[in-house]
Amino acid sequence: MTALGIDVGGTFVRAGVVEADGRIVASGRVALDDRSPEAVVEAIAAAAHRAEERAGATPAGACGIGVAAQLDGGGGQVSVAPNLGWREVPFGALVSRRLGRAVRVVNDLKAAAWGELRAGAARGDREVYVLFVGSGVGSAIISGGQLVWGARGLAGEIGHIKVVESDGRPCGCGKRGCLEAYAGGHSLIAQMREALAAGQASETSLAGLTPVVLEQAAIAGDPAAREIYERAIGHLGLALGNQITVLNPAHVILGGGVLSHCSQMRERVADRALRLAAEVSRRGVKISQAALGDDSGLIGAALLASEAGP
Amino acid sequence: MTALGIDVGGTFVRAGVVEADGRIVASGRVALDDRSPEAVVEAIAAAAHRAEERAGATPAGACGIGVAAQLDGGGGQVSVAPNLGWREVPFGALVSRRLGRAVRVVNDLKAAAWGELRAGAARGDREVYVLFVGSGVGSAIISGGQLVWGARGLAGEIGHIKVVESDGRPCGCGKRGCLEAYAGGHSLIAQMREALAAGQASETSLAGLTPVVLEQAAIAGDPAAREIYERAIGHLGLALGNQITVLNPAHVILGGGVLSHCSQMRERVADRALRLAAEVSRRGVKISQAALGDDSGLIGAALLASEAGP
Repeated sequence: MTALGIDVGGTFVRAGVVEADGRIVASGRVALDDRSPEAVVEAIAAAAHRAEERAGATPAGACGIGVAAQLDGGGGQVSVAPNLGWREVPFGALVSRRLGRAVRVVNDLKAAAWGELRAGAARGDREVYVLFVGSGVGSAIISGGQLVWGARGLAGEIGHIKVVESDGRPCGCGKRGCLEAYAGGHSLIAQMREALAAGQASETSLAGLTPVVLEQAAIAGDPAAREIYERAIGHLGLALGNQITVLNPAHVILGGGVLSHCSQMRERVADRALRLAAEVSRRGVKISQAALGDDSGLIGAALLASEAGP
Repeated sequence: MTALGIDVGGTFVRAGVVEADGRIVASGRVALDDRSPEAVVEAIAAAAHRAEERAGATPAGACGIGVAAQLDGGGGQVSVAPNLGWREVPFGALVSRRLGRAVRVVNDLKAAAWGELRAGAARGDREVYVLFVGSGVGSAIISGGQLVWGARGLAGEIGHIKVVESDGRPCGCGKRGCLEAYAGGHSLIAQMREALAAGQASETSLAGLTPVVLEQAAIAGDPAAREIYERAIGHLGLALGNQITVLNPAHVILGGGVLSHCSQMRERVADRALRLAAEVSRRGVKISQAALGDDSGLIGAALLASEAGP
């Protein structure tokens, strides 16, 4: 039985008709110019329509939607979605009404982790830790083959652990010194902008600056880029090493735009994590790259919607 | 149906006949003068015999043993038990042969957490994080009402996360800079000994020094005690705050000898953790003191042995 999976990103909404094994039958994409809840709901309807038209059928199964948001409880209520500029939006109810069907709204990283578990790099594993570094930093914990949700569905928020306590960088969450404020893609660029504005030595231009360009500049020895890049690796590697110590995963999956495309950063974070993790916990742990790329979210959302869950 | 629960501590072995609701029908205790695996196995047999004699019956149900060890897999193989001085001991097989019955060997903190979940401070909760600070530092994670074991049963090893990266204190695990090396009861005393040996200002005597005495000295303003005490609170509070962020528990239980008896430390660690945890994750979280004291381990071991397990 096919299900409908939807991934709400910062710039696009993607919908896909997904088989029970995670294969995408057909998909559709709609650009997000306006990020108001109403506009996002319309984009979802349009993307779903395209995917269903291409598949030649309406999916008989459930509908799952992954969104980069902190959700409160299982009803699709968004507490806060910084990238979309939302606060307290009854997103699940809005989408459900527009599509005329029940939907399950889940955090985008939990959806992506579930996609990797069921159809990607962690297929068949039961104890998995998935670390995503894209524009933000997040993670998902899989224990006994099941997602760890936490009391209100917020488990995995590794981006907001404190890594610098006094005078830390401000974070999108409103606090300071969070991991994401040093290692998220948005923060990497922001730090470079600040370094240049402060007159730090650098040959790097802000025009077209991406995390990949920053990585290349750091490797080439650009002083400002190097400092930011090394600090990000330092914080990410320590955080991941400590998660390996505490969670004892069999398999760690590294994904998200930054860790997928900055290959040297990915390798160095993995090496550093293994060096810092407790001897016994790291024994036998495997660290891999996410396998499904941008598809993991919609695949996982579709498959999660087909499961019982909070 | 009653079960037999055994708790192997550093100085005593305690055994108890335990009801399905966690009530202890009768118990027995045997001092551990010799910590060799053979001597511990004999002490277990003696303690079990006492408990059963007092209960007037052999428990019909399972037998569970909690031990302060890193266990590899579910067969009771001890990888390392620093407090007992063991390395690679087939403990489960030894006890099982001696008692003439199947036993389930579990990590002592997982047993204690399970006791608190089933019969103590966390009764009825489903998302729980239990932090124990006794002679060592450890924790247990409960998700969906079940213990998180990790790939090889090692989940919860918070005592060995890195909190100081360069030039950290040596830890019993063989690495440096672990949380336990700053905040465990043994380490608190060791740090005081080192401070006095180094001639740091202090009115505190090493004779009869316990974590409680150290707390009192710190509160009274003793400089050396204060520095050690504040540093321990700093590391514990940050580690707990970050665990709340990542795990989103509904309920945090603080236990173990140090956190049970050093009441000001317990309160300050809790306050600091809540201040540092991510805004959304800490909302609604409850922090309590462990309720079963020294009984949690044997109660939990008995009840865990009655469950299906990894």
